[in-house]
Amino acid sequence: MNAAIAEIICVGTELLLGEILNSNSQYLAQQLATLGITHHYQNVVGDNKERLQKTLAIAAGRANLIIFTGGLGPTPDDLTTEAIAEFFDVPLVEQPEVWADIQRKYASIGRQVTANNRKQALLPQGAEILPNPIGSAPGMIWQPTPGLLILTFPGVPAEMQIMWQQTAVDLLRSQRLSTETFFSRVLLYWGISESQLAEQVQHLFASQNPTLAPYANFGQARLRITARAENQAAAEKLIEPVQAEILSLTGEYCYGNDHDTLASVVGKLLIQHNQTLAVAESCTGGWLGQMLTEVPGSSAYFLGGIISYSNAVKADLLNVNRDDLDRYGAVSTQVAEQMAIGVKQKLQSNWGISITGIAGPDGGSAQKPVGLVYIGLADPEGNVDAIEARFSPSKGRNWVRKLSAYSALARLRKRFVMIGV
Amino acid sequence: MNAAIAEIICVGTELLLGEILNSNSQYLAQQLATLGITHHYQNVVGDNKERLQKTLAIAAGRANLIIFTGGLGPTPDDLTTEAIAEFFDVPLVEQPEVWADIQRKYASIGRQVTANNRKQALLPQGAEILPNPIGSAPGMIWQPTPGLLILTFPGVPAEMQIMWQQTAVDLLRSQRLSTETFFSRVLLYWGISESQLAEQVQHLFASQNPTLAPYANFGQARLRITARAENQAAAEKLIEPVQAEILSLTGEYCYGNDHDTLASVVGKLLIQHNQTLAVAESCTGGWLGQMLTEVPGSSAYFLGGIISYSNAVKADLLNVNRDDLDRYGAVSTQVAEQMAIGVKQKLQSNWGISITGIAGPDGGSAQKPVGLVYIGLADPEGNVDAIEARFSPSKGRNWVRKLSAYSALARLRKRFVMIGV
Repeated sequence: MNAAIAEIICVGTELLLGEILNSNSQYLAQQLATLGITHHYQNVVGDNKERLQKTLAIAAGRANLIIFTGGLGPTPDDLTTEAIAEFFDVPLVEQPEVWADIQRKYASIGRQVTANNRKQALLPQGAEILPNPIGSAPGMIWQPTPGLLILTFPGVPAEMQIMWQQTAVDLLRSQRLSTETFFSRVLLYWGISESQLAEQVQHLFASQNPTLAPYANFGQARLRITARAENQAAAEKLIEPVQAEILSLTGEYCYGNDHDTLASVVGKLLIQHNQTLAVAESCTGGWLGQMLTEVPGSSAYFLGGIISYSNAVKADLLNVNRDDLDRYGAVSTQVAEQMAIGVKQKLQSNWGISITGIAGPDGGSAQKPVGLVYIGLADPEGNVDAIEARFSPSKGRNWVRKLSAYSALARLRKRFVMIGV
Repeated sequence: MNAAIAEIICVGTELLLGEILNSNSQYLAQQLATLGITHHYQNVVGDNKERLQKTLAIAAGRANLIIFTGGLGPTPDDLTTEAIAEFFDVPLVEQPEVWADIQRKYASIGRQVTANNRKQALLPQGAEILPNPIGSAPGMIWQPTPGLLILTFPGVPAEMQIMWQQTAVDLLRSQRLSTETFFSRVLLYWGISESQLAEQVQHLFASQNPTLAPYANFGQARLRITARAENQAAAEKLIEPVQAEILSLTGEYCYGNDHDTLASVVGKLLIQHNQTLAVAESCTGGWLGQMLTEVPGSSAYFLGGIISYSNAVKADLLNVNRDDLDRYGAVSTQVAEQMAIGVKQKLQSNWGISITGIAGPDGGSAQKPVGLVYIGLADPEGNVDAIEARFSPSKGRNWVRKLSAYSALARLRKRFVMIGV
């Protein structure tokens, strides 16, 4: 095939109604960029056969790789496969193995297949199955005319992404639609803003290969280093010296790379030290525990915790002094410290972390505004202290809660880094 | 003008590289839907004059309202205005008041205007200014040919949105491009698949006003009823009988509407009954507590919980029998029941919910595979029982955990519904 020019067509009336954000386009755009495949246009069209076919006609006139998402479900308005087949005047054929697979998937979760589901087993004659390991609807790989490749994916992002990774990437490389590799490494930061970070590495932004770009995601600054090379190993080699220079300038704030999370990094540190952790959560209500247990294998160091949402639970289960609760309030250094000690003792862990704060929208005062949070840390040597944080309440209750949980993990990580690992 | 058919064109190479999420399309789609203006297509094109003009040519052939975002900045790759003017063969004219305004805005923040900025004061002859109260680049309102209206906005979402609200909405109403309102209600389901749901209400899919559409989001089936009328109240009236019919057919599975969550619905039920809740979480690690405390005001009924990730915590803090832990295992009916009773007693709540399961990826066996979860419920009368659930492990650890937490909330809701509220 010639150099690939891709085009993305997302199908779904929910996109035209603005009910969902088109994250599939962004994902595919990033993926195409990574593979060095150019695309010039993205399209969104509703669940309408005629308009879907018009969009396909235009795309087929200017691209040789068309990627569809959406419209593969079992309901009557899911008509992507049918519309594409009809456009090329090719009949639909039932794929017995797909139908068997759909029936098996439904049976395994104790559900009945319906007549509607059978439609999902139809593909145009000559098309191949693009397997969907986690959902009922497979996609297709089809070359309806010479020099034109069509791939279809479901609209559910998790399904689309795993299908892309497991099948499409290799396919595009084997068909020589992708001949270059763009490889990125993302450095993850906590405790420094995007603009502060950018200032420290400003002299590197002029670099062409690799390129360096700063961005922020959920309040966390990041740096992306992207290299272009013939394969990933060569790209990584280009990235290494730039990464080393960045870390020598900003290393203390960088907690990890790529798929690391604060929770996974803290988990590795606890395993290295052969230590355990317990959490006492008030305003976060379990979020910190949830983040810690997101990491497979976290039972090696995370014992559990106490969600002390009410003051009675703080006193009864965490042994927080009732007089201190009255005198200083539940959101205070004193209570945060006692919560951390209490959970450490109750669960017999090496470390205890506590969070108590005012997440809002109500419950704030002039002295203790919404966004005020205390994070307590009780260490294996029996020391305890709490730090105060003030998060902007303007982004809402969950923002305050999420930043509180992140900050608690960052506190523990920082303590380990200070000890020296 | 005739009934409006709009089309959205977002301009920006950063969208083609996947560097930003296209939130402007979603915003505009929602706004158009609310105004009752149909749109059939959304387009994304890079900072390239020729391709922008090709996209415009196609859109002008099928829409009478074209909305552009992006490409109004001062740099050479910002070429939206220029490309549109050239397409219609109309010269650009400098707008003295825009140029004065740009100079004033820059001076006010102590910055020098550059020669590049002067470009932002150019509009096609005959176009009107679409004022930008917060940024330097204004948009335009232009009718280049009879029956075609073009609006341009900057790509910065905050600027685009305020310009839309302050100018575009009134303009579209005054030009009678918006004469109707579309209003949607979304019914939220748990415990029924999208295809099962669709089958039960299949006879309603032919309805034209309101329309009915099924979809799934994060494993939950939904039905969207959308009515078209002269105002929201009239639209709601059209929705009512259809909603009533749907609920008479599927009501037991419908837990709420629109912005409800399982946690907020459970919260309302607890408040109605003046009862409190505590949670005991193993594999979810705090996720259930996190969901419950996402709801503002949840301290009225949620006391807290115990994250009993280790068996020692199950025994020591929840009084789960150690022999039963050995005999039946931590993931068992017996342990789930004892966890629910234990947390209810420890926190002195009316209800206790427990979750214990195998989230994976490791820890499964032939008898107890990954995805096996027990959800215990201890009620105010002292009864307790646990149900078994088997979630597909193929979507990963967090999917199992999330479904477990949702299912626990759904269990409590169902119990209330059975009692009769």
